[in-house]
Amino acid sequence: MVKIKQAEATLESLHRIFTVPEAPNSTLGEIEHAISQNLNRFLQDHIAATDCSLTEIEKDFNNPTIPDAPTFVSDHTAFLLEKLVAQSVHTSSPRFIGHMTSALPYFLMPLSKIMIALNQNTVKIETSKAFTPLERQVLGMLHNLIYQRNEDFYQSWMHSAAHSLGAFCSGGTIANITALWVARNSALKAEGDFNGVAEEGLFRAMRHYGYEDLVILVSERGHYSLKKSADVLGIGRESLVAIPTDENNRICLEKLSEKIVELKAKNIKPFALVGLAGTTETGNIDPLDHMADIAEREGMHFHVDAAWGGASLMSNNQRPKLKGIERADSVTIDAHKQLYVPMGAGMVLFKDPALVSAIEHHADYILRKGSKDLGSHTLEGSRSGMAMLLFASFNIIGRQGYELLIDQSIEKAAYFADLVEAQNDFELVSAPELCLMTYRYVPPTVKAALNVASPEHVDAIHTLLNDLTIFIQKRQREAGHSFVSRTCLTPSQWDRRTTNVFRVVLANPLTTREILQAVLDEQREIASTSSIALPKLLSLADTLLR
Amino acid sequence: MVKIKQAEATLESLHRIFTVPEAPNSTLGEIEHAISQNLNRFLQDHIAATDCSLTEIEKDFNNPTIPDAPTFVSDHTAFLLEKLVAQSVHTSSPRFIGHMTSALPYFLMPLSKIMIALNQNTVKIETSKAFTPLERQVLGMLHNLIYQRNEDFYQSWMHSAAHSLGAFCSGGTIANITALWVARNSALKAEGDFNGVAEEGLFRAMRHYGYEDLVILVSERGHYSLKKSADVLGIGRESLVAIPTDENNRICLEKLSEKIVELKAKNIKPFALVGLAGTTETGNIDPLDHMADIAEREGMHFHVDAAWGGASLMSNNQRPKLKGIERADSVTIDAHKQLYVPMGAGMVLFKDPALVSAIEHHADYILRKGSKDLGSHTLEGSRSGMAMLLFASFNIIGRQGYELLIDQSIEKAAYFADLVEAQNDFELVSAPELCLMTYRYVPPTVKAALNVASPEHVDAIHTLLNDLTIFIQKRQREAGHSFVSRTCLTPSQWDRRTTNVFRVVLANPLTTREILQAVLDEQREIASTSSIALPKLLSLADTLLR
Repeated sequence: MVKIKQAEATLESLHRIFTVPEAPNSTLGEIEHAISQNLNRFLQDHIAATDCSLTEIEKDFNNPTIPDAPTFVSDHTAFLLEKLVAQSVHTSSPRFIGHMTSALPYFLMPLSKIMIALNQNTVKIETSKAFTPLERQVLGMLHNLIYQRNEDFYQSWMHSAAHSLGAFCSGGTIANITALWVARNSALKAEGDFNGVAEEGLFRAMRHYGYEDLVILVSERGHYSLKKSADVLGIGRESLVAIPTDENNRICLEKLSEKIVELKAKNIKPFALVGLAGTTETGNIDPLDHMADIAEREGMHFHVDAAWGGASLMSNNQRPKLKGIERADSVTIDAHKQLYVPMGAGMVLFKDPALVSAIEHHADYILRKGSKDLGSHTLEGSRSGMAMLLFASFNIIGRQGYELLIDQSIEKAAYFADLVEAQNDFELVSAPELCLMTYRYVPPTVKAALNVASPEHVDAIHTLLNDLTIFIQKRQREAGHSFVSRTCLTPSQWDRRTTNVFRVVLANPLTTREILQAVLDEQREIASTSSIALPKLLSLADTLLR
Repeated sequence: MVKIKQAEATLESLHRIFTVPEAPNSTLGEIEHAISQNLNRFLQDHIAATDCSLTEIEKDFNNPTIPDAPTFVSDHTAFLLEKLVAQSVHTSSPRFIGHMTSALPYFLMPLSKIMIALNQNTVKIETSKAFTPLERQVLGMLHNLIYQRNEDFYQSWMHSAAHSLGAFCSGGTIANITALWVARNSALKAEGDFNGVAEEGLFRAMRHYGYEDLVILVSERGHYSLKKSADVLGIGRESLVAIPTDENNRICLEKLSEKIVELKAKNIKPFALVGLAGTTETGNIDPLDHMADIAEREGMHFHVDAAWGGASLMSNNQRPKLKGIERADSVTIDAHKQLYVPMGAGMVLFKDPALVSAIEHHADYILRKGSKDLGSHTLEGSRSGMAMLLFASFNIIGRQGYELLIDQSIEKAAYFADLVEAQNDFELVSAPELCLMTYRYVPPTVKAALNVASPEHVDAIHTLLNDLTIFIQKRQREAGHSFVSRTCLTPSQWDRRTTNVFRVVLANPLTTREILQAVLDEQREIASTSSIALPKLLSLADTLLR
């Protein structure tokens, strides 16, 4: 009896969590208010400024048992503030210039809350209604941005049940997989007795078409998600063929053509060519127009991975840099990068709205034939109404607003590149084409020594510079004042030697010139504390210059 | 000069959207306040009660051009309220019992805002820090819920760089694809000269292993995402072999064994067996323990799709129904279903934490070897910090709280099944095993007539009942008072005839017995307005009973 009464009381309190809001003076109510009032201050106040080791943090997240008894909202909120928020990353800080994430416009906070409160599922009309036409319009807007077709085109296809101008997805990886899935299924489509790869699978498809193998072509700067795509789609990572790049990290067209000839001689089918706009590590843009020519000539699906750089199309000033993208069969763009919406907004766009028939799926209970359910043309099933946030941003910021944001980010990168070049102890490794660039720290005497060093000595110096770069980047991250990322390139000016570099993405509109100067000053300061790589470098340089 | 001044002014106003919050008395500020005060009333007030045709709604989302000039936040918010929110679906209404989405606890609204404001990217530590150990803990909790391994196990593997207890993903479809990707890569692993399917692809894998074909086995009630997985993974939809079900919509073990013998005789490799817990259409649970025996005997990967039913493990009272799930190699669970978190929280769990090595990926700039970056073991790349919401729900609701929520949903379904059976003009088609059931409307004279009808007449009646079911379901949805979904089954009590049915999921804790009665009353009322199917049915019944 006591037990039943207890259960009833708990049930009653459970009902309350679905019906009674948090009081404004509750811990959670106060946090919400603080975020609404001053997001930047909330993040500054609550994210701890110094680094705590991952091993330390793991101790707070170590219990694999779901707690049996409930916890008060306020107590749990206090825990989250102290242990989770404090030890999270301040991705929107103007001094954190190593990521592709940036600050978010304020209006997206309350709009996100509306989106989550509505909890629509865009897999089908029945659970999304107006969110379905809205998402189709957003895809239409992006399609229009890339392909600039006429009004008739969009009126015919944007809301057509059997067509899709693209697919909204959780991120660029899913977008790239979706594009290459479409490409694979189109290349190995039904023919005669063969029902197509979607129905019969790759093994029978290859036997039917008589190819020795299938490959995807992309420059050596391709994003790792392409290798993942090749694995998932059953093509195999080895069949993602990396074409060398030129001195500007762009695919070498001559090498590409040679590779195609070589493959064809072996009866290997290159079914897809991927162009990059821009590359994840250097931000450079492949010669898309020439690649489109080659893809057309060879009957390959031409996909452009513009996950990061695609946002630059919002600026009419930058548009020419991406010339040829309008000839791509498919394009990936991430809105959570330089379109300034929260994480979880990738997209793939298709030039031909009928292309998605290659991956069309139906079921009895949803996605019935003839329905406009978005889920019949997406890799994912259930999805949220994220498209609403991009729609709102397009309207509230406007294309002109985006143009300014994009242009000033690129100007800022040009400024920073000049600043780096003006220092006698830094070296620009890849110049910015958009707002991304790489550089490293090289003491002046080492620069001088490099001019007189033998190839073996250059190797030795390079190895030490790599160690020093990694040392500086890690220490700077740990100190928590500012953050740049790092990657590993093979720049032609260093005879393709493996070169660790700092990488910065200057998308945050709040990053100032003073901050950029401070980042360099701090790196110089950290370098001077290096007790292994720097002394070795200086002594080696000394010897060489003696 | 004027142009530059204009640009500067616009840049200034652009900075404001990143730094100045919406005023509390702005349109958006007021909406946010309204949602915080009374979410249910906000949704009731703003979601229009009656259905508007999709064609009508599309007119509001018809412009494929990104607006050139910016719009005031308040103006755009007014547009969103009037055109988007008003025409969205009230998924959290207690009278909308056709979906697997339900009401959300209040505390998740402000927590979602914190999550979005932090904008972490869980693909790597550098952009997520504490969110990485938190997500690993959440996966550990789910793993523990399913597999109940000892403390040592979790201390060894939960935070281990080269291992993963599972993968958090956007939804059940990605979870199922991930599980079958792991299964495929494990079945066709490296051996001798062969580098494994991940590296070399399916074509070379099949030649190496010498199989004639690969198949995945699942009952005919399998979710459509499994077919999609078979397509994406290059196995082919035809190679998803559907095994017939028994009278309770559970896989027929005898037929399963027969099929395996048949496949092996043809040198076709069944590499994965999928168990359902429960099925999307009827909520039934496959005999998991017996399936585990068969999978073990045949060396197949045993995956359990518990996207919907897995939440029932939170109740010790329901746990026995899923017996055998702890023997699965992988399990899919969606937290955005009956774990009551917002859309976008799927998971796949792996019994063996080393299994993910089959899909491990690395790159130079992220996911470096030895890092604890979550992205090296996920299909997706960039992802949000959704795991935080599930973590908070586990703590705030507690396992006991979930147990009550689950138990009462199942009691409610049993009650509704009894209620349906007590009506002389309704028929229960599939009884609830968890909180999902199906039924249809059958006028009393038609029931009587069915007893004396010839097989041909039964066919005719069935077709008319199907039409009537579809008519009622559509009209009820359009009227907007309540919503049940529908699907198409082949129940054994009707000699496997195609049978359209109403489908309800009683997960919303706010759904009352009065509401359930009202749903039936409304359906009866709508049936009486049928001007084609109902008169035909009654006249046919009349003839037969004469």
